[in-house]
Amino acid sequence: MLKEAVYHVARDNYAYPTGADTLRVILRAGRGDLKKATVLYQDRYLGSELFLAEMELKARDELFDFYQAELKLSTKRFAYVFLLDDRIKRAFYTEKGFFEDLRPNTHFQYPYISNQDLWEPPLWAQGAVAYQIFPERFAKGDSSIDPPRVEPWETAPSAESYKGGDLEGIIGNFDYLLDLGIDLLYLTPIFTAPSNHKYDTRDYYRIDPYFGSEETVRNLVELCHRHGIKIIFDAVFNHCGAGFFAFQDVLAKGEESPYCSWFNIEGYPLRTDPPNYETFGNQVAVMPKLRTDHPEVQEYFYQVGTYWIREFGIDGWRLDVANEVDREFWRGFRRAVKAENPRALLVGEIWHEAGEWLRGDQFDSVTNYPLQYACLEFFAKDSIRAESFAHRVAKVQLNYTEAVNLALFNLLGSHDTERFLTACGGSIAKFSLAVAFQMTYAGAPLIYYGDEVGLKGGNDPDCRRGMIWDRNKQNEGLLSWYRRLISLRNSYPLLRIGSCRTVWADNASNIFGFVRFGSPGQILVLLNNSPRRAQVDLCAISWPQEASAELRELLSLETVYLKQPLFIEPYGVKILSEKKE
Amino acid sequence: MLKEAVYHVARDNYAYPTGADTLRVILRAGRGDLKKATVLYQDRYLGSELFLAEMELKARDELFDFYQAELKLSTKRFAYVFLLDDRIKRAFYTEKGFFEDLRPNTHFQYPYISNQDLWEPPLWAQGAVAYQIFPERFAKGDSSIDPPRVEPWETAPSAESYKGGDLEGIIGNFDYLLDLGIDLLYLTPIFTAPSNHKYDTRDYYRIDPYFGSEETVRNLVELCHRHGIKIIFDAVFNHCGAGFFAFQDVLAKGEESPYCSWFNIEGYPLRTDPPNYETFGNQVAVMPKLRTDHPEVQEYFYQVGTYWIREFGIDGWRLDVANEVDREFWRGFRRAVKAENPRALLVGEIWHEAGEWLRGDQFDSVTNYPLQYACLEFFAKDSIRAESFAHRVAKVQLNYTEAVNLALFNLLGSHDTERFLTACGGSIAKFSLAVAFQMTYAGAPLIYYGDEVGLKGGNDPDCRRGMIWDRNKQNEGLLSWYRRLISLRNSYPLLRIGSCRTVWADNASNIFGFVRFGSPGQILVLLNNSPRRAQVDLCAISWPQEASAELRELLSLETVYLKQPLFIEPYGVKILSEKKE
Repeated sequence: MLKEAVYHVARDNYAYPTGADTLRVILRAGRGDLKKATVLYQDRYLGSELFLAEMELKARDELFDFYQAELKLSTKRFAYVFLLDDRIKRAFYTEKGFFEDLRPNTHFQYPYISNQDLWEPPLWAQGAVAYQIFPERFAKGDSSIDPPRVEPWETAPSAESYKGGDLEGIIGNFDYLLDLGIDLLYLTPIFTAPSNHKYDTRDYYRIDPYFGSEETVRNLVELCHRHGIKIIFDAVFNHCGAGFFAFQDVLAKGEESPYCSWFNIEGYPLRTDPPNYETFGNQVAVMPKLRTDHPEVQEYFYQVGTYWIREFGIDGWRLDVANEVDREFWRGFRRAVKAENPRALLVGEIWHEAGEWLRGDQFDSVTNYPLQYACLEFFAKDSIRAESFAHRVAKVQLNYTEAVNLALFNLLGSHDTERFLTACGGSIAKFSLAVAFQMTYAGAPLIYYGDEVGLKGGNDPDCRRGMIWDRNKQNEGLLSWYRRLISLRNSYPLLRIGSCRTVWADNASNIFGFVRFGSPGQILVLLNNSPRRAQVDLCAISWPQEASAELRELLSLETVYLKQPLFIEPYGVKILSEKKE
Repeated sequence: MLKEAVYHVARDNYAYPTGADTLRVILRAGRGDLKKATVLYQDRYLGSELFLAEMELKARDELFDFYQAELKLSTKRFAYVFLLDDRIKRAFYTEKGFFEDLRPNTHFQYPYISNQDLWEPPLWAQGAVAYQIFPERFAKGDSSIDPPRVEPWETAPSAESYKGGDLEGIIGNFDYLLDLGIDLLYLTPIFTAPSNHKYDTRDYYRIDPYFGSEETVRNLVELCHRHGIKIIFDAVFNHCGAGFFAFQDVLAKGEESPYCSWFNIEGYPLRTDPPNYETFGNQVAVMPKLRTDHPEVQEYFYQVGTYWIREFGIDGWRLDVANEVDREFWRGFRRAVKAENPRALLVGEIWHEAGEWLRGDQFDSVTNYPLQYACLEFFAKDSIRAESFAHRVAKVQLNYTEAVNLALFNLLGSHDTERFLTACGGSIAKFSLAVAFQMTYAGAPLIYYGDEVGLKGGNDPDCRRGMIWDRNKQNEGLLSWYRRLISLRNSYPLLRIGSCRTVWADNASNIFGFVRFGSPGQILVLLNNSPRRAQVDLCAISWPQEASAELRELLSLETVYLKQPLFIEPYGVKILSEKKE
């Protein structure tokens, strides 16, 4: 037995409740090493009654197998050990290591399922289709509020240029969003700020006059809600703009300012070139970093966070540079926001593994860049094949609980990356396949405005081009592909909230497949990431649930005979679902 | 390379700051597998400048080696990968797995060292010597408040019996505690409750009349503080006693009671035999479990928590059944208590691995039962030898950050276990050796009243016997051993706050040794857990720090010639320190 590979902790993504009396436990072991893994469990106080749960292989990567079991105890207090069998030996794996026999005082313990442990991201966000708008570039609605020196819409943007997009433009094109079928609108910052991106906020309580007024915002939120669409804003609290009143006060008054302690200042007088104060990134003088561990700063931004929810009815926040902000800041922010609206959504911008922010005390979701990067390598760059891709997505999924996975913002690109179509070398076929993955995999797919009509763009600022509104220039095939996939997603709840398991990953054909499943059935998705027609033997697929009669006999989207291989066209997708009742 | 053994996460006990610009990272690898481990790190925004830190082997257990390095960046934002070398191959270990070359977007990230991340348990608690008193059994002070039917002091106690110990008894014997040299007094519950142990609280605002009055408490706290001793009480918030006003209200009014939601009630009318409501443990009717996720319950107990700190000046709380209480309850409790006194101590009663409670948002310390159990097996039961013991203590230490380790309540027994001397079969030699370990190892040693004079006792209620005050019956040798060890600890700051590393673990001789070290030097502790005189070759010891001239030439407590083996008597201890200036 490869003992070094075995891993479990009685918390986080390795042990979490899935119901008031049900604990899910995950065990990691060496790939292919175990014949059988069993959980022996008992009430922490009633050791006499011992229960057994056989573990199921849930996922694997290049090194490890991941087993899963659900333990049930009405008393909610779990003590457990694992009995591992590798065909040659059996061993008990415990909190205190490996033993050949069952020892007292060695159990893993999940002491009690508290109601708080049953925490989930808001249900409406799990599996929702989100759409990200960079307001300066989405659509022009009201030319009377255009910035001076607006450049033509189709000119390649520069870091400083303006095109005149605004909130009225979003309202004017709302039917387009409705047709697309989205559930959630995310706007990059719209508060007063000197830049086109507005991540250098001057006033957190005012809409940028180039974008519109409070009235426009109210109209937009009302429009969204009338159509059952949620809307979230961008919370830039890691830093402010240099024009923010508190920073201006320090600039003006130096050490006399009551706001000195809101910033990390190295000396007086304040200097901006180079800055002698802490900033966002590498000495970005226009973005002074805020001391988010300071009670006054916390109180100020908690007020901002609740103000827009209470007064304007927005449904949550995307949290900029969330990983550089004090953890206690976020804990307080969550309490404040959820007190205002328990169903508000909090999405952290985090580019790496983010488990520690997703334990129920900080965020509901994060930007799933690790998945984006795996997609980039598999679909766009061809630098990894299907098996590696399977391992990558498994790793990402295994970082979080299942409910969190369903709410992750699964993006292919953003205002901070090259656009995915461009990364695909402009190949609509490859891009479409990636979109099919995005729209069927577990999570909340986030569409970056314009991706759906074939808008291209390299890294910032090129990824912030003006939206294509000319029907002749829009890629109609791509747009209808998005609409079909979203409509499919909206017709099949399993594509939103079903569990997810990889069932196919073949390097030769480069086909990757997974099943979304749950009490209403299962849906198989197969993606052929190759320029060759390829086949899959459906009989070789290990379905997560027993295949129903419907699945055996009739598949609602495609009828196949299970004895025959299923052919998939180059860069094609097959989606097979149990028949809908 | 045994890739399956390699583990790191950029958080918790694997990555934590030890200074405003210093990040400590720990890497796990297969035992003996690596020749060299190096961290390559850079600022998250300034990828151009790459730094290297060679990792040092810090600890090992039966399966793994643990490497450690300190990374320094004035910008506080870390991105890093590990370069591992096993003599045959080199590989980069990253957040996204292993690679043969350095890849973009694969770094582990510690995004920013926030002030909050620099959190530590109160400095006064790190390394403090604590003394636990079960007030009903420590000493009688005021017979006028004795319970009815008090049994003789020396009779074996039963679950329900009373002996008449009280707070005045503690005050009357305060010189004894001063002579012992303790820093911290921990009292099991003293609020009004019908039992002798008082874990079934009736009134959280009143001192039990059998124990004393508010006045006695004030005198006791004042006495402690006058002598620089801290004092903490026992917070029983997981459950109350059946006599608690809120539960009584539900008993009286049923569903009409405004306190119904404070408890988990299965049906009305309330029944106590068997209870139709959730309780502590296995249907302990007299201890109804509180719904600690309920805002009113939280508010009530936050008031209790701050009241005794504010009004009586106590220095913190030991938190009963802490692991079954809602996590958000504890977060709020910590905020409330620390707002009252930032240096207050919060110690959770947790018997298993407790990392998730020790991240700075909940507790400062926990009861270190995993270490206690290792001591039981090694010193008392002889069921493990020195090497296994070394692995066990390594595992415990590696669960937490170094500052947390220094504050852990290292106990040998408590009111909930067999006494350690009894577990040693009454062997003073074995017990003394365990005490030497307890008093020199990293952590806050917690003495259970009476252990120091040879009080014996099996499991509860036998471990709650009356303290031995008759000098003729006290084990004087043992008592002076405690005094000497505590005095040694008080003379050598390294024994309180020094880092700790195992340097010797030999199954044949059963000698276990470790070094406490830091900027003022190093202290070697060798424990011979065998009935045979045995020897250690000091030249074979790998000192954590370069040995100073003093260490080489003169050792203040024992003079040895490094070329000669050091002999240790059966169950003996050698403590060698660099000379004090």
